[in-house]
Amino acid sequence: MKKLWGGRFKKKTNPLVEEFTKSIHYDYKLAKYDLAGSITHVKILEKCGYLTSDETSELETALESIGKEIGKKDFTQNEKCEDIHTYIQNELQKKVGNLALKLQTARSRNDQVVFATKLYCKEEAIPDLQSAIKHLVKAIDKLVDENKNIILPGFTHMQHAQPVYLKDYLGAYCDMLKRDSNRLKYISQNMKVTLGAGALAGTPIKADIYEAADVEAVINSIDSVSDRDFVIEIISALSIVAMHLSRLAEDLIIYSSKEFDFIEIDEAFCTGSSLMPQKKNPDVLELVRGYSGRLYGNLVSMLTMMKGLPLSYNRDMQLDKESLFSSFEIVSQELEVLTGLIKTLKFNKAKIKEHLEDESLYATDLVYYLVDKEVPFAQAHEIAGELYRYSLDNKLGIKGLPQKKLKKFSDKIVKKEIVRLFNPAFSVRSKKSIKRAKA
Amino acid sequence: MKKLWGGRFKKKTNPLVEEFTKSIHYDYKLAKYDLAGSITHVKILEKCGYLTSDETSELETALESIGKEIGKKDFTQNEKCEDIHTYIQNELQKKVGNLALKLQTARSRNDQVVFATKLYCKEEAIPDLQSAIKHLVKAIDKLVDENKNIILPGFTHMQHAQPVYLKDYLGAYCDMLKRDSNRLKYISQNMKVTLGAGALAGTPIKADIYEAADVEAVINSIDSVSDRDFVIEIISALSIVAMHLSRLAEDLIIYSSKEFDFIEIDEAFCTGSSLMPQKKNPDVLELVRGYSGRLYGNLVSMLTMMKGLPLSYNRDMQLDKESLFSSFEIVSQELEVLTGLIKTLKFNKAKIKEHLEDESLYATDLVYYLVDKEVPFAQAHEIAGELYRYSLDNKLGIKGLPQKKLKKFSDKIVKKEIVRLFNPAFSVRSKKSIKRAKA
Amino acid sequence: MKKLWGGRFKKKTNPLVEEFTKSIHYDYKLAKYDLAGSITHVKILEKCGYLTSDETSELETALESIGKEIGKKDFTQNEKCEDIHTYIQNELQKKVGNLALKLQTARSRNDQVVFATKLYCKEEAIPDLQSAIKHLVKAIDKLVDENKNIILPGFTHMQHAQPVYLKDYLGAYCDMLKRDSNRLKYISQNMKVTLGAGALAGTPIKADIYEAADVEAVINSIDSVSDRDFVIEIISALSIVAMHLSRLAEDLIIYSSKEFDFIEIDEAFCTGSSLMPQKKNPDVLELVRGYSGRLYGNLVSMLTMMKGLPLSYNRDMQLDKESLFSSFEIVSQELEVLTGLIKTLKFNKAKIKEHLEDESLYATDLVYYLVDKEVPFAQAHEIAGELYRYSLDNKLGIKGLPQKKLKKFSDKIVKKEIVRLFNPAFSVRSKKSIKRAKA
Amino acid sequence: MKKLWGGRFKKKTNPLVEEFTKSIHYDYKLAKYDLAGSITHVKILEKCGYLTSDETSELETALESIGKEIGKKDFTQNEKCEDIHTYIQNELQKKVGNLALKLQTARSRNDQVVFATKLYCKEEAIPDLQSAIKHLVKAIDKLVDENKNIILPGFTHMQHAQPVYLKDYLGAYCDMLKRDSNRLKYISQNMKVTLGAGALAGTPIKADIYEAADVEAVINSIDSVSDRDFVIEIISALSIVAMHLSRLAEDLIIYSSKEFDFIEIDEAFCTGSSLMPQKKNPDVLELVRGYSGRLYGNLVSMLTMMKGLPLSYNRDMQLDKESLFSSFEIVSQELEVLTGLIKTLKFNKAKIKEHLEDESLYATDLVYYLVDKEVPFAQAHEIAGELYRYSLDNKLGIKGLPQKKLKKFSDKIVKKEIVRLFNPAFSVRSKKSIKRAKA
Repeated sequence: MKKLWGGRFKKKTNPLVEEFTKSIHYDYKLAKYDLAGSITHVKILEKCGYLTSDETSELETALESIGKEIGKKDFTQNEKCEDIHTYIQNELQKKVGNLALKLQTARSRNDQVVFATKLYCKEEAIPDLQSAIKHLVKAIDKLVDENKNIILPGFTHMQHAQPVYLKDYLGAYCDMLKRDSNRLKYISQNMKVTLGAGALAGTPIKADIYEAADVEAVINSIDSVSDRDFVIEIISALSIVAMHLSRLAEDLIIYSSKEFDFIEIDEAFCTGSSLMPQKKNPDVLELVRGYSGRLYGNLVSMLTMMKGLPLSYNRDMQLDKESLFSSFEIVSQELEVLTGLIKTLKFNKAKIKEHLEDESLYATDLVYYLVDKEVPFAQAHEIAGELYRYSLDNKLGIKGLPQKKLKKFSDKIVKKEIVRLFNPAFSVRSKKSIKRAKA
Repeated sequence: MKKLWGGRFKKKTNPLVEEFTKSIHYDYKLAKYDLAGSITHVKILEKCGYLTSDETSELETALESIGKEIGKKDFTQNEKCEDIHTYIQNELQKKVGNLALKLQTARSRNDQVVFATKLYCKEEAIPDLQSAIKHLVKAIDKLVDENKNIILPGFTHMQHAQPVYLKDYLGAYCDMLKRDSNRLKYISQNMKVTLGAGALAGTPIKADIYEAADVEAVINSIDSVSDRDFVIEIISALSIVAMHLSRLAEDLIIYSSKEFDFIEIDEAFCTGSSLMPQKKNPDVLELVRGYSGRLYGNLVSMLTMMKGLPLSYNRDMQLDKESLFSSFEIVSQELEVLTGLIKTLKFNKAKIKEHLEDESLYATDLVYYLVDKEVPFAQAHEIAGELYRYSLDNKLGIKGLPQKKLKKFSDKIVKKEIVRLFNPAFSVRSKKSIKRAKA
Repeated sequence: MKKLWGGRFKKKTNPLVEEFTKSIHYDYKLAKYDLAGSITHVKILEKCGYLTSDETSELETALESIGKEIGKKDFTQNEKCEDIHTYIQNELQKKVGNLALKLQTARSRNDQVVFATKLYCKEEAIPDLQSAIKHLVKAIDKLVDENKNIILPGFTHMQHAQPVYLKDYLGAYCDMLKRDSNRLKYISQNMKVTLGAGALAGTPIKADIYEAADVEAVINSIDSVSDRDFVIEIISALSIVAMHLSRLAEDLIIYSSKEFDFIEIDEAFCTGSSLMPQKKNPDVLELVRGYSGRLYGNLVSMLTMMKGLPLSYNRDMQLDKESLFSSFEIVSQELEVLTGLIKTLKFNKAKIKEHLEDESLYATDLVYYLVDKEVPFAQAHEIAGELYRYSLDNKLGIKGLPQKKLKKFSDKIVKKEIVRLFNPAFSVRSKKSIKRAKA
Repeated sequence: MKKLWGGRFKKKTNPLVEEFTKSIHYDYKLAKYDLAGSITHVKILEKCGYLTSDETSELETALESIGKEIGKKDFTQNEKCEDIHTYIQNELQKKVGNLALKLQTARSRNDQVVFATKLYCKEEAIPDLQSAIKHLVKAIDKLVDENKNIILPGFTHMQHAQPVYLKDYLGAYCDMLKRDSNRLKYISQNMKVTLGAGALAGTPIKADIYEAADVEAVINSIDSVSDRDFVIEIISALSIVAMHLSRLAEDLIIYSSKEFDFIEIDEAFCTGSSLMPQKKNPDVLELVRGYSGRLYGNLVSMLTMMKGLPLSYNRDMQLDKESLFSSFEIVSQELEVLTGLIKTLKFNKAKIKEHLEDESLYATDLVYYLVDKEVPFAQAHEIAGELYRYSLDNKLGIKGLPQKKLKKFSDKIVKKEIVRLFNPAFSVRSKKSIKRAKA
């Protein structure tokens, strides 16, 4: 296939090089946005007299029809063209002959690629991902709604800490996801999609003409072709999403263990074992946890690639796309499959209730109880500590201790009050510091 | 030294554990912000009746005087306390005796640490870094100003591409740095510095009372103690800064090589060799380039640490601070030392001019020249390619070719026009696409 | 303080640069090995006539006495010297005056640093780490010995799989640790500690003279000063150790949760909470888990730093030491503190036994039972699956099902055989494929 | 398609899950080795009576014919099967019907996958890579041979240091590559390819029977299914290869810049520009440099994935293969394309000679010259420094200074000796410390 460059070259490119430098098997994703850029460029060329209005129409029509054809095409590693831009150029030539060659006027792939990549992120990949986040948040909200009254043991250090509302526990994940979506919004808003950088030095076409064609003119053309900050920002933001999802996955994996047994994951979201017939494994969650590594890897890949690169454009930068596309794909799939899993999640209320009977969950409430009876905090902490110590050493429940025994630890402790205190609903209701949205 | 916990424990902590879990040799940086949090907490405790107004005054005075004392203190690995929070608590107890113990009421280190860390970022570390960025941008602007008319060979793929203004070349770095500063601004604005999360479940103190003490009440207490997104966001943003600086460093290292010789780095910013007496090495720039690795490493460290962590707080999270502090320190130092280096940078105008004589820099201008004479772009590209090919093969300058020879490539080529065309000033002025700020 | 270079420089080094390029606060660790290198170099200089035998003695004595003095010294960030090599050179000059200057003959820090770093790894850091690994393996072996008969539920996907011996479960960690130690052995053996590279081009002293002084002569001097493979290999090996320890930590954290309750971690290896008096947190294990991130970060830092560095030595390489030293320190501390923790670990046999009653652990044994009765494997798998399904749906134990009911699934199932089969000791004994070392 | 598990499941797997957990589009690479494992397993089953000799023959024949068919098959994302193991199982069932089901006896995919992956590395991927390394070393050796007498300016800190032989400069890369190959050899040798781990607990088949079938029996079955050290070791070793190649690429990119112009890269290994007709870009080298990031990313991906994973097998581990395969592919391609490029590389001797005239390259020789005339090293260094300083400040060549002037710096300096000294051949020959292999 014809290349977009060639004039000065006498030799043919070595086939190993063609293989090694090729990117069409992944950059075909940019087709739509490269075509949009070309159509804009056609308009610009018309405005500055490089194209007649007939040529403009012919090119626009051809480009649009290429867009339709590409929609159905399946690009593979074996494609003849080096990249999607060359592919489109060649298709165009088939349709309009040498007129196609005029399209390259005052234009460079350095500029073209960054334009198409940004547009792809801004118009397709980021909105799609935000919508997938929204679906997961909605699924969680619905799950909370269907399990309104559930209270769970809250953990710190994987140890029983204090009881918490299911809505607050799952709400923590919703808050993370909303932050994630906002982060992407910011990145998208700050991404400048410009034309006019040329290879690095700008083009002879005036900035005004670009702006008249409804595209931002470039501010610093050298920066524009050298910059991949937006890719790093996106993969970094997606890495945080993946990290959040890995935590959700870890929680659900642990909660679905035999020992915890807080939840039941629907069979349709589990897999079995070829050897052990009883197995119902949370593979989906494990893969979500493991894929965080791929995201981090993609981020390291991008950061390393950009390290110490001299200005301006270098071919290393072509490698941004695999990391970018892979990151979007993985996180999208994760969000989608987790949405399905969450929708079918069941809580094992009986088992959770059993675990809530652990008196250690109410130790902090006991401290507050004593503080409210004017015991200084640190002393109250000490008293409660000793009482739990005693309970543990003697394997005796605190609620079951006789009033006389309780008095030994503090004469402020009244047995029947303790019985009321050691209660999950009472415990969660007594926490007033959280600012709840007005209904 | 006394710990902030203890009641239930019968045994003493193993000294290996004290050593292993200690953080005071780095978290002392949070002292000022932990004290600010404590003073706010004192006010809150007063408002809800846990402290009398006398107790409040006494605690505030004591905390303020601790702040003054700490200002002068040098914390080391050998410090007895496990962390700065315990240190302050112990100091407080020395000053006000058991009254100090009341300060712990309705408070947890989980909440306290994240509050202090966020405040440190927001009020100290981020503004300081933004100011260091500003200084570097200013130094670059001044350098441009002092070297107004310089035009440089512009590079893509480390090969001569087209001439560019020095102001645009260096301006690319200024644009990167301004993006960097904006990124930090966004992170800072979106960082919610709240109180009231307790250990994870909130506290019995009403949200209103927190807000009356001029601090945001927590929205989701579980998320609040589990979240380190802000640390990842910051280290990611600082990694991008470090990456930009590594590119600047690389450019300057190459430009100061004997072969390029575009610039001269001031001796005060170079070092020599213990063996080779002639050496004047750009060590500063090499370290700037190399330190990008440390930033990336800090980022990987944080992301890995958070991967798959179950909710809510886990002690792993304590490790956020070394990565965070180290990242701020390295990038700050880089910015500062580069500012100094840039201020004293000299351009070797004679050598640059010599390199600008390379005719290949004007090949694109030749294409535009032909296009303006109605040669379709692709054909113009072909003609120029062949002309350069000929010039290379025969080691003949294009400008020196006779008109007759030039005509062989295209009858549109007029020798005297070519001579005017192959000129750096003419070349840069002919690029109109860049949107320049109005003077 | 005096620098090892200077002659060509007219200006003083900018203080920011001194601060930025300094490494003495960490490279002081190399003192012993730098001195060893200097003593060898003195011998070499004598052999080739650059030093008289009197000068040789004087220098050797002085270097040895510096070694003794440094042993007691505490190096900090505020040290005046740029690095330990300069420090030693300056001390030497204090002792022997201008004779010290002869030591620099035919020598370069590029060579000196890599020599000292390799020797430090080979003679100190790697052997120490191997010994720390040995102690942990020994502690685990002892723990197994003291808990000989314990069988645990074995997990895959965090779900009950089959019963396993404690000795095999913990033995898995011992096997990992032994691999880790072997990996370090290989690295150490393959590390070539040479002299004679000079700055990059070799020295005028013959290779034979180096070898006569019992040091390997360099093979490729350019490679020698440019190479940091050994640092990457070591940090990579240490990252694998840290990863193994993070898995052990995770297991123990989960096993010490209230829900699992398989183990009890000694109080001396736990910490408490400033708010929640009941808490006994496995902080040590959490930090071990989290520190894996620091190791990975150090590895990324080194790899990034070396990426795309032109030959030969570049100052970026100085940054190898912080990553290297930090990696050794963290993993050493982890091994040591885990050894202590393992020594005091208790197993909660009653609770483990309770969990072993879960019939799903014996599903695979049921399959084998049927296969031994000539049921083809896949059919046996199917039968067992259906039986467990039935048991789950009806909340009925399989062992408790009447013979008649069991027959419905397969007429090969004999109730009393099933009762014997569903037994942990029987299950583990029936696995014959493991090649056990002869006693 | 049929799954290898199912019995206990009533519901069908959700299609999102099938999509998300699928691995056949990359693990098809293991087909050959999975078949080898199956054939071994068939033999084992025969030996212990689970299969008759007729069944054994039938299965073996069928497996072999599947092997032949798979050789020609093109696996894609759209494949119906979840993985290659299931695919083979299904093909087998098509051929031998229910007899296929017996193959699963005493076998688990946990064991099967790790067996096939190790065998693939040991028998195919590692040897192929070692051979690609060998080809590159050979190409470099040949290049050296063809350019025997070339001496180059040697660089430290990207500054002229001392002249070096081309054979030593390129030899440094050969030495790196040989270390790389040895590293892979060690990994391969230490990889234990075992069978008999079952899902995690072993199988009822005796260890002896495995060994009689010429396969190692497992030592610790839990470790065996949980271990991915070998994958990390390999990707780490490949990352070091990629790092070495990124340095070679960087050197060649810089050396082929207009300013350096030391080398000429063959057109067949370069690409051009769609805008700038003169461009001949070293894209291959840039991609080699950039791909190092992908390798590092793959390493981070694996390390992160394994971090904190509880024993034994978890599904996260499935993600090892994409990182592993991608790493082998990239580095193989890099080695191959660089071999081609090196074979056609030309040195620009005239230009190199010109750069060798830089007198600063001989400053160290001047020091040695003075030392040989009994000037103490440090003083000689000082004298040379001052002489170069003078030469620089006055833009006068040292060789051109009158004897009288030279004497001012040291009365040991004899002009005609200096003229002889400032010579690349003389300089490189005077370095005796390098231990050269005997011819």
